[in-house]
Amino acid sequence: MRMRKKKWALPFLEENSEIVLSEPENFKGKWAHKLNKSNIHLEIGIGKGDYINQMALNNTEIGWIGVEKDPNVACIAVKKYLENNHGNELFIVNDADNILNWFDNEEIDVIHLNFSDPWPKKGHTKRRLSSKQFLDKYTKVLKSHGQIIMKTDNSKLFNFSLVEILKEDYLLKDVWVDFRNEVHDEDAISEYEQKFMSLNQPIYRAIFEKKM
Amino acid sequence: MRMRKKKWALPFLEENSEIVLSEPENFKGKWAHKLNKSNIHLEIGIGKGDYINQMALNNTEIGWIGVEKDPNVACIAVKKYLENNHGNELFIVNDADNILNWFDNEEIDVIHLNFSDPWPKKGHTKRRLSSKQFLDKYTKVLKSHGQIIMKTDNSKLFNFSLVEILKEDYLLKDVWVDFRNEVHDEDAISEYEQKFMSLNQPIYRAIFEKKM
Repeated sequence: MRMRKKKWALPFLEENSEIVLSEPENFKGKWAHKLNKSNIHLEIGIGKGDYINQMALNNTEIGWIGVEKDPNVACIAVKKYLENNHGNELFIVNDADNILNWFDNEEIDVIHLNFSDPWPKKGHTKRRLSSKQFLDKYTKVLKSHGQIIMKTDNSKLFNFSLVEILKEDYLLKDVWVDFRNEVHDEDAISEYEQKFMSLNQPIYRAIFEKKM
Repeated sequence: MRMRKKKWALPFLEENSEIVLSEPENFKGKWAHKLNKSNIHLEIGIGKGDYINQMALNNTEIGWIGVEKDPNVACIAVKKYLENNHGNELFIVNDADNILNWFDNEEIDVIHLNFSDPWPKKGHTKRRLSSKQFLDKYTKVLKSHGQIIMKTDNSKLFNFSLVEILKEDYLLKDVWVDFRNEVHDEDAISEYEQKFMSLNQPIYRAIFEKKM
């Protein structure tokens, strides 16, 4: 989701440097301590933060870290979080390419990928957040039996992700090719997802578990 | 697909005993010889036979075996085949539960499951053609790197099948959560599938490959 440039974005993110970490590498290996939680969930590409904020609110026993490279949407996510701050969420406004600099091996319990950019062109395959380039990094930072939970409206990205992730050392724990066909209490629905639901477009979701 | 009883079904199937094999166990270990093909494809639950007949016509280098337990639909499949007989198809009108009696270990290249009965009730899980009960048998009769190719309009059966099959020794070779979003020349479209397509309902398809 690319947004128009906002003049207030960067100053606002800097003002909130206690939760928007400009040097996340300082916390490598120390996130459980920093968040004061043993269970750490990471969302990559949080957009306006509807999913992570709602999940953090509903699951206060979990520590949440949101990564978003575009400051012009990240600022909205942070702003919304501050309205309902439960002290269990941190933000990194930077490129997820760098996650190995920020997280130690086996430091994360769950990685969430929601409505990621499908990068439909073949030449852009490597940019997809479920491409091997990224998966190799996720596998490192995930704990044993850690999970990748992905949700998307894009059928081709979903096909690609299932095949790519299952080539690696992951089990398919659960899958839904029409997730909104049933009610799922545990989950959060973003404004973005609501748009697809109101158009009656299917939502795809899968849970992958790291084998070892 | 349950059909009204047809008086002519059983006599017609008996009349065509050269291609409708009443004692398939006689050919256990000998199907390649019987069909005079080295590449053997099996469809379980052929219904009216639209898929297997069209595939057999388009792929004459392959030997095809169609299994259907209901004689009242099998008779239609056989009748349609006889209109375009290419000598590369055989029929078994019997319950797929018995496939280990009919096929030797590693005798089949590909098993096709098309629009199988979803058996939606939990108590009927074992009846689904992608349940562990059946998978254990498929794994035996499939050659090394043999495939299961499944297609369905039923999202819950598809979710279930992905999880169940990938618990066993299979790789997800390819998957489509909206198969008819693109044209696929190699495939056959049955009347039954056409009905879902004209209602704009998605068709799900997956190719699983036996690991060893």
